[in-house]
Amino acid sequence: MPVVISLTTDFGLRDPYVAEMKAAILSIAGPVQLVDVTHQVEPHDVTEAALALEAVVPFFPAGSIHVAVVDPGVGTARRGIVLASRGHLFVGPDNGLFTPFLSDADRKIFELRAEEYRRPTVSRTFHGRDVFAPAAAYAALGIELARFGPPVTDPVKLTWPEVRDTAGAVAGAVVYIDRFGNLVTSIRADAVRSLGPRVTITIGGRAVPLVGTYGDLPTGQAGALLGSSDRLEVAVREGNAATALRARRGTPVVISPASSTRRRGRS
Amino acid sequence: MPVVISLTTDFGLRDPYVAEMKAAILSIAGPVQLVDVTHQVEPHDVTEAALALEAVVPFFPAGSIHVAVVDPGVGTARRGIVLASRGHLFVGPDNGLFTPFLSDADRKIFELRAEEYRRPTVSRTFHGRDVFAPAAAYAALGIELARFGPPVTDPVKLTWPEVRDTAGAVAGAVVYIDRFGNLVTSIRADAVRSLGPRVTITIGGRAVPLVGTYGDLPTGQAGALLGSSDRLEVAVREGNAATALRARRGTPVVISPASSTRRRGRS
Amino acid sequence: MPVVISLTTDFGLRDPYVAEMKAAILSIAGPVQLVDVTHQVEPHDVTEAALALEAVVPFFPAGSIHVAVVDPGVGTARRGIVLASRGHLFVGPDNGLFTPFLSDADRKIFELRAEEYRRPTVSRTFHGRDVFAPAAAYAALGIELARFGPPVTDPVKLTWPEVRDTAGAVAGAVVYIDRFGNLVTSIRADAVRSLGPRVTITIGGRAVPLVGTYGDLPTGQAGALLGSSDRLEVAVREGNAATALRARRGTPVVISPASSTRRRGRS
Repeated sequence: MPVVISLTTDFGLRDPYVAEMKAAILSIAGPVQLVDVTHQVEPHDVTEAALALEAVVPFFPAGSIHVAVVDPGVGTARRGIVLASRGHLFVGPDNGLFTPFLSDADRKIFELRAEEYRRPTVSRTFHGRDVFAPAAAYAALGIELARFGPPVTDPVKLTWPEVRDTAGAVAGAVVYIDRFGNLVTSIRADAVRSLGPRVTITIGGRAVPLVGTYGDLPTGQAGALLGSSDRLEVAVREGNAATALRARRGTPVVISPASSTRRRGRS
Repeated sequence: MPVVISLTTDFGLRDPYVAEMKAAILSIAGPVQLVDVTHQVEPHDVTEAALALEAVVPFFPAGSIHVAVVDPGVGTARRGIVLASRGHLFVGPDNGLFTPFLSDADRKIFELRAEEYRRPTVSRTFHGRDVFAPAAAYAALGIELARFGPPVTDPVKLTWPEVRDTAGAVAGAVVYIDRFGNLVTSIRADAVRSLGPRVTITIGGRAVPLVGTYGDLPTGQAGALLGSSDRLEVAVREGNAATALRARRGTPVVISPASSTRRRGRS
Repeated sequence: MPVVISLTTDFGLRDPYVAEMKAAILSIAGPVQLVDVTHQVEPHDVTEAALALEAVVPFFPAGSIHVAVVDPGVGTARRGIVLASRGHLFVGPDNGLFTPFLSDADRKIFELRAEEYRRPTVSRTFHGRDVFAPAAAYAALGIELARFGPPVTDPVKLTWPEVRDTAGAVAGAVVYIDRFGNLVTSIRADAVRSLGPRVTITIGGRAVPLVGTYGDLPTGQAGALLGSSDRLEVAVREGNAATALRARRGTPVVISPASSTRRRGRS
């Protein structure tokens, strides 16, 4: 079974940049299984890429290598890193892209400094091809991580969209809007479950019911549910929640235990 | 030679959903060759996905596995199925997606019910990742189809855009518009050939000639031809037929034997 | 290590055409590594595809096979070719697509005429699937190139956007605009270096400084740099140069040695 290498970038699919990265990998590594996570990250949006990685990585086989390049600081002093966490490897710029995987106690990080694991000539504008893709390929060949460079103990972390507890409620925000207009929020499934089965959910001040799946909603109606990436999502059945609720990234979402009197009267 | 697994969805390419499916496949199967058919199916448009499969499947090697997920009913009671037909396997929801492959006498269909061939936890909103991708991976490993669940004898079929015979003519409609603005119709090459070499074709009431290929048309002119998927297509040479003819899905197309008198006068 | 086959087309990603090509390849070849260069070439824009190939091919392993199909002349008398150049193979229509690889003295070109290396039935509108994909697959199997057909000595070449020397300056033009709005020009890095370290660069009549990388520019400011494909590029840091400078393909770019008096006064 060849090593799996995933790619996540903001390069889009029209320019040949992603193919240049893949070509650079294939010029070094033996047989690998390349998987595109997405190349449609909003240009320079490190948070969006980090959320995509958080969602997708748990489904990859252990030992997979994830190259991610959303890199507004390319060519400046920002470091490149390789990170080992939760049985996966991550390669990319040290700008917060891998924040979801930095909390593990036994994570290991090394700076990508050794010149023998880069392309012979490194473009100052395209480290994805000349530094990160080769590093992933050498990692796939089994190079010991410490050989890439010195350990890193202070990786850059994103200020993640935080869930806060205020008066028993959990407050969060929309962090991502998918193709279907579903609103992925910063509120995790765990937090929702901790509130018990009866809850009140508001998005942008408007109440929506908690349901099990899209199919539980009448067509065209909005509801909240625990989405496939273990976050609270707001959706409209066979419709577009972003449009229907005029929501966007940052729109506040609040979930709180339902006042039992009112709820009992309804059920 | 690894098993080929194709993927057809309406998930788009920006969200990580397709990669989650691929990761789920790679976590189970040994070496496979993944091929994206399209992920740009109009959301929830089962007919469009069925047409894409009809066009592409005959070119895949025998023994290929085709996972298709256009699934507005996810999380409801609709069944998941695995279908064996014409030397290929198909995995997806039982909602008509595989209509072009249901007519074979010796097709076999089984419901995807066995829990050991799913992911341990099944999201109610993402069976593509948690049910269909694993089923395809297990099928690639050679699991006997009957082990997935009970036989299905009444699969859902689309009311396919029908070709009707009225007074010697064959009437159909535009069923798909491709990137170039070419208009793929519901009229099959067989039906066209049955009318002989001299025919009259009208689209939206406007007559167009039957030609052998785009290059037989003057630049900017519209014509009909037998397209690469063995259907009658209407095209404009180096132009966009959809725009030029103001056609869209459903626009009527009629082909009839030319009245021999008028045609002879011209040729 | 399987043979790498890259694909470059103007087919887009919504229609199943690219998958039909891949399926046709996989039906013939043994294990191969397929890499999409781009399928978003502007329809019928042979120059854009040639530029993408010029940028990406040097990064692929030697022995890779590059199928490219931007083919407004499909179905007409234009030839199909296989080209061996710089350790790579190229397969596609003889319409200039491979211009960057035609200058090698020891290149070899053969016309794709042998029927045994095509699909049994060849659609007149889709040689990508029925002629070029099979040829690439047979080439991957090691078929001797001369068996495809007679040698070609007069391949079609594009009139490449030329760099001209006028009064010591090098004049060129924008040839490609990437996803980030970066303006790739027809002026090669070699030409820039030949002018020495102090140069004056104008684009659309407006002067921009030469810098080492995006990070050397103040945010929002435009500058020119040697891009990752060894051409002069004009960029705006964390911005879109195409929009900011109102530039498009064909916008003139001129680089000239700085008049030493004025420059000295500034530095």
